Amino acid sequence: MSRTLAQLAQHLSAQLHGDPQLEITAVSSIASARPGDLVFVDNPRHLSTALASQATAIIAPDFAAPAPNPPRSTKPLLIARQPRLAFARAAAFLAQSQQPTPSIHPSALIDPAAHLDPTVTIEANVVIRSNVRIGPRSVIGAGSILGPDVTIGSDCRLYPLVVLYPNTTLHDRVIIHAGTILGSDGFGYVRDSATGRYEKFPQIGRLVLEDDVEVGANSTIDRGALDETRIRRGTKLDNLVHVGHNVSIGEDVVIAAQTGVSGSAIIEDQVIIGGQVGIADHVRIEAGAILGAQSGIPSKKVIRGKGIVFWGTPARPIKQYLKDLATLARLSKAS
Amino acid sequence: MSRTLAQLAQHLSAQLHGDPQLEITAVSSIASARPGDLVFVDNPRHLSTALASQATAIIAPDFAAPAPNPPRSTKPLLIARQPRLAFARAAAFLAQSQQPTPSIHPSALIDPAAHLDPTVTIEANVVIRSNVRIGPRSVIGAGSILGPDVTIGSDCRLYPLVVLYPNTTLHDRVIIHAGTILGSDGFGYVRDSATGRYEKFPQIGRLVLEDDVEVGANSTIDRGALDETRIRRGTKLDNLVHVGHNVSIGEDVVIAAQTGVSGSAIIEDQVIIGGQVGIADHVRIEAGAILGAQSGIPSKKVIRGKGIVFWGTPARPIKQYLKDLATLARLSKAS
Amino acid sequence: MSRTLAQLAQHLSAQLHGDPQLEITAVSSIASARPGDLVFVDNPRHLSTALASQATAIIAPDFAAPAPNPPRSTKPLLIARQPRLAFARAAAFLAQSQQPTPSIHPSALIDPAAHLDPTVTIEANVVIRSNVRIGPRSVIGAGSILGPDVTIGSDCRLYPLVVLYPNTTLHDRVIIHAGTILGSDGFGYVRDSATGRYEKFPQIGRLVLEDDVEVGANSTIDRGALDETRIRRGTKLDNLVHVGHNVSIGEDVVIAAQTGVSGSAIIEDQVIIGGQVGIADHVRIEAGAILGAQSGIPSKKVIRGKGIVFWGTPARPIKQYLKDLATLARLSKAS
Repeated sequence: MSRTLAQLAQHLSAQLHGDPQLEITAVSSIASARPGDLVFVDNPRHLSTALASQATAIIAPDFAAPAPNPPRSTKPLLIARQPRLAFARAAAFLAQSQQPTPSIHPSALIDPAAHLDPTVTIEANVVIRSNVRIGPRSVIGAGSILGPDVTIGSDCRLYPLVVLYPNTTLHDRVIIHAGTILGSDGFGYVRDSATGRYEKFPQIGRLVLEDDVEVGANSTIDRGALDETRIRRGTKLDNLVHVGHNVSIGEDVVIAAQTGVSGSAIIEDQVIIGGQVGIADHVRIEAGAILGAQSGIPSKKVIRGKGIVFWGTPARPIKQYLKDLATLARLSKAS
Repeated sequence: MSRTLAQLAQHLSAQLHGDPQLEITAVSSIASARPGDLVFVDNPRHLSTALASQATAIIAPDFAAPAPNPPRSTKPLLIARQPRLAFARAAAFLAQSQQPTPSIHPSALIDPAAHLDPTVTIEANVVIRSNVRIGPRSVIGAGSILGPDVTIGSDCRLYPLVVLYPNTTLHDRVIIHAGTILGSDGFGYVRDSATGRYEKFPQIGRLVLEDDVEVGANSTIDRGALDETRIRRGTKLDNLVHVGHNVSIGEDVVIAAQTGVSGSAIIEDQVIIGGQVGIADHVRIEAGAILGAQSGIPSKKVIRGKGIVFWGTPARPIKQYLKDLATLARLSKAS
Repeated sequence: MSRTLAQLAQHLSAQLHGDPQLEITAVSSIASARPGDLVFVDNPRHLSTALASQATAIIAPDFAAPAPNPPRSTKPLLIARQPRLAFARAAAFLAQSQQPTPSIHPSALIDPAAHLDPTVTIEANVVIRSNVRIGPRSVIGAGSILGPDVTIGSDCRLYPLVVLYPNTTLHDRVIIHAGTILGSDGFGYVRDSATGRYEKFPQIGRLVLEDDVEVGANSTIDRGALDETRIRRGTKLDNLVHVGHNVSIGEDVVIAAQTGVSGSAIIEDQVIIGGQVGIADHVRIEAGAILGAQSGIPSKKVIRGKGIVFWGTPARPIKQYLKDLATLARLSKAS
């Protein structure tokens, strides 16, 4: 389905310069734009390329707005204060029309004691156990396995081969990519001092992902040992991320690929974490701190500093880390 | 099902102070305890909180035992030398009663030339190929795929979507979490010096996991190239751990999340390895060494020192590593 | 099936010393060789062990060739310039005879609008959506999920539980190990400066893996955001590797386990990358560079130097890195 420029302008609260009846069918990059496509520009240097492309219309900030007595613009423009954001919203608006028709594939194995909203979509070979609840318009990808007592809110999207251990709870608009495991046992053992052998500490708590959380592919998030692991509203995790038991992650946090968060760590709101970062157990990352890729936070440390970048293992403010590196390089050269 | 305090005291070899007929239905944390719950205390500071909780009984060490002429204790106590261990065992004892009734889901696809003990549980959509053998009381999670010639012992638990490549062998009481891949091809190629192209070196060996091994979610363990990869009794691996071909891991080793062990490495008994550690090919970690998180062991190195913590890349004793860091910080400050 | 030494000699362009009619059934290591096995030697020190083994024949380089008036050799020899390579090719030649008979398991769910070559093998519980195309002799492992518009060439091998997001393209002879996710959404969001919340940037591009690419188990490769992610001919990725959106990887690259490549990075031909390496966004690794395990390349850096090894975070030439380490150790000792 397509949207007219008038519809897009209204949806995006953007100012339209051009024919409001033109139809947009997709978003695209400038390089691969075809007729019917919408592109965006957030840098004046790219405007002429966008104008020369085959795109039907361009989202751009003020600088692109036609002058009072404009030369005839070659393309319709949607003027938006945050053009990248407007482009993202335009894409979502166009995609809305592509929602699957609700259906339950006949191969799905659904326990009679599950409660599915009539508008859900259940793909092939899904297994749904007893007391599972799934809210309106949620989509469960092929081959996913939902254990007993799982709760999924509305408008969630699970891609194929996702596993939810028993008792896992997803609130609304949660997206889980393929192969991700939610609610697995934490890594907790007790060593018998008499024999030196490890015995399993109970891992019987639960996992809660709040509204608008997205988790990439093949990640793993453990449930609480006795109580809960919780990831709060709006937080985004990349692929192959590990989150241990009893971890608490705040709102609007982003965590890049292959980062690991050990048991009982606390990550507060709006923290930004690069790839391959290691956060040891019982660490606290306070609100708004930024951890550079591959940095490491030793056990029980507190990282504090809204907007400050930390780097290295053990992590220190990047200014100090870079000074340490420069000092070492200088001494090494002199030796 | 529940257990009486008398049954628990006997099972745990603990000394009971209180009514032996009281029923315990679950373990819990002190914070979330409800009537019927058993909690534990291993620090005198937490005893009063535990006593004030809704828990029915408390596992605690000697310090909590009532004095000879005790004031009337507010709760029954189970006195144990290792309270955390006793608590773990109590949880396992209570969970015993929750074993699934043996059954084979009708959707499971089982080759006629497989040998399944009559007491196994096979969940939905499991695929079992020819010559697979599964021992008493083992449970195979939904959607798992067992290749030809796989052998699984007794009391094993595979969670959903586990893959066992052909010829993989699990001994008894092995636990494999969801999404883990066992017996995949090692990363071995031969470069043709004439063309510069890589060709696959045969990866046709096998993988053996001995008794009481547990592997977390989405981990990968490669089979031997020509011979075997082996993980010995009682060793525990966390989520997203990688073990390469021909690796040998000893008994009672623990390896935290996202650690990688390259081909032909040897890890001896009772080694402790933190998260995101990198162990290169042909390394030997001798018995009882401890590798801090994110440390790295270069190719062919030997790490020796029972109870000594190593840290950094390349890893050195933590004392030296911390001294190196302090030296650098001092010089950097002075510069 | 087996091959005669004559057939092997011809296939490998090797010089045969011994009975051409002897049958070889398998390759093996010297240590576990049995009658019918072929082994290889590339180091003169191992020749006597190989001769004493139960192997039926040995691949070896020139040094093993019998002298003009030889003492009677104890075993047939296949003399090859690159014995390890010849051994790998012999293994592949022997395995050719073990290809599965083409078949489609009755449990597979195949959209009528998919185009499958009559010689494909589709294992149990595979889900194939509309407009999927699969070429001659390709094998799709049990429980794999192929989204709409996926294209797979000839002689590809997908192991169990592989997920291909819509529009993913594999050329010929591509091997994908179990649990790997291809074409997932990249990690791209736009932060609304007014609310501080993240909104999803469109992730609607595609992923192309060219001929002879192999990807290990539980890896993840994201499709392009708007355009494409591409991995070129002959490149090999190990287990648990992450490749972000819009990445371009050249020909004959090898990337060891748990390495992560961030969005829009470019890795040129014949680069060699160790395990747990972190490559940030928009990095360029030029042809033939070598990155040591756990090294890290910060955002937008260019790494240049065919055959030069880089190590550390931030990565520098290994000579400098080792000098830096030595300098620090010396200063630390002196302090």
